[in-house]
Amino acid sequence: MSTASGDVRLIGLDGIPEMQAGGDVPGEIAAALERAGLTIEPGDVLVVTHKIVSKAEGRLISLDGIEPSEFARTWAAQYGKDPRQVEISLHESKRLVRMDRGVLIAETHHGFICANAGVDASNVDSGIVCLLPVDPDASAAGIRSALRDRYGLAEDDAPGVIITDSWGRPWRNGIVNFAIGVAGLAPLIDYRGHHDAAGYELHVTVLAVADELAAASELVMHKLAARPVVLVRGYAPAIGAAHGSGRDLVIDPARDMFR
Amino acid sequence: MSTASGDVRLIGLDGIPEMQAGGDVPGEIAAALERAGLTIEPGDVLVVTHKIVSKAEGRLISLDGIEPSEFARTWAAQYGKDPRQVEISLHESKRLVRMDRGVLIAETHHGFICANAGVDASNVDSGIVCLLPVDPDASAAGIRSALRDRYGLAEDDAPGVIITDSWGRPWRNGIVNFAIGVAGLAPLIDYRGHHDAAGYELHVTVLAVADELAAASELVMHKLAARPVVLVRGYAPAIGAAHGSGRDLVIDPARDMFR
Repeated sequence: MSTASGDVRLIGLDGIPEMQAGGDVPGEIAAALERAGLTIEPGDVLVVTHKIVSKAEGRLISLDGIEPSEFARTWAAQYGKDPRQVEISLHESKRLVRMDRGVLIAETHHGFICANAGVDASNVDSGIVCLLPVDPDASAAGIRSALRDRYGLAEDDAPGVIITDSWGRPWRNGIVNFAIGVAGLAPLIDYRGHHDAAGYELHVTVLAVADELAAASELVMHKLAARPVVLVRGYAPAIGAAHGSGRDLVIDPARDMFR
Repeated sequence: MSTASGDVRLIGLDGIPEMQAGGDVPGEIAAALERAGLTIEPGDVLVVTHKIVSKAEGRLISLDGIEPSEFARTWAAQYGKDPRQVEISLHESKRLVRMDRGVLIAETHHGFICANAGVDASNVDSGIVCLLPVDPDASAAGIRSALRDRYGLAEDDAPGVIITDSWGRPWRNGIVNFAIGVAGLAPLIDYRGHHDAAGYELHVTVLAVADELAAASELVMHKLAARPVVLVRGYAPAIGAAHGSGRDLVIDPARDMFR
């Protein structure tokens, strides 16, 4: 169980360049840390927007070569969408959750439920869309191990890494950042069986701390400032011991009341 | 439009006592700030768990006097719940969204959608449940104006205040903190019409920053550490000018695909 600190810093890393396919994300993170006069400390968590990871992993697709199905064309025409982009969203989906009023909410092959199966045309060149990483946990683990090696850190002193995407939510306006890939820390903290300040046993309190770290990081990522990586210092979760997965945050379909 | 800072601090305020009906929440916040050697700076946001606000506002109900309806009794018996607590949840609801597998998800009279209409038995004495504040925006505004007066601040230098509750989410495991009351800052930041780093116009990017501030604060509130107030320093939203409401975060029913 982690002991949350009373003083957490969210430090946005500036100057990380546009990423190309094959780009070195951990190398750019290390360079940005160095420019800021920072190094990695035990308990640090790096929160990384998936966009730079997807680009480095070559997960960009040109709309040019896409032949939309009739299904995609019909839906796109109805709502003024690009049918090729709809086709790519369908390809990235294993199930459609809602398809209503021009909004396509899909379950991705990873099991995440989000608009357009995570296919996104923002922060990329015109005519290109960006897909989610194939395996965001593996992306997070790769960044973590590269930084561990680069800084010569013990396993438990390497930073936690979270890969994020920003999604809408049922019932709520606005988007927030969610964790889609996790390495080196537990995405959930389970307080069940513990007792609160009044001695009352906490029955249903499992905190989605990876989602809270993701949401927190957006406060300094800032859509327009192009700050794709945030160092969270002072939260100090139990690192290393609890290797979680971003998929731990996905509810068991048998318990899902909003399939 | 706020310009997000690249360095945000989340500072948990220690030593805030159990709150009684009629308790002075802003007074206890000021005392905790003083103990920590802190004062209020322009751009500060105070994030306050609703539990201490509800207690100070006398929003505790004893189960003893509650006569559950047959509807509440039948449902409670089926899932091993306390029928009086179910009755109170029904009373706090204007609509039931789901009532399935022992989970009651309701729309509160404020319009928030959450389990048990926000009725909660944790962090209160046995036989007592805690309700949400009647008007969380008014609660936030009251804390804000009391602190403004106490510190002799200009309207735009008084802190933003957010009242939170922690809820589950469709499709995701674990709970996170959400904003239910807001004073002195805009809960949403609208980037539509602005251009991202690639020159691409951001069409659907409205960020729910009050929910992100709420989620961030939970990282230092910590269920067991009983730290009910967090000072967020360095985020520096436009304060004062944009007086938002926690209800701005509730989606328009006409656009809600998950009613």
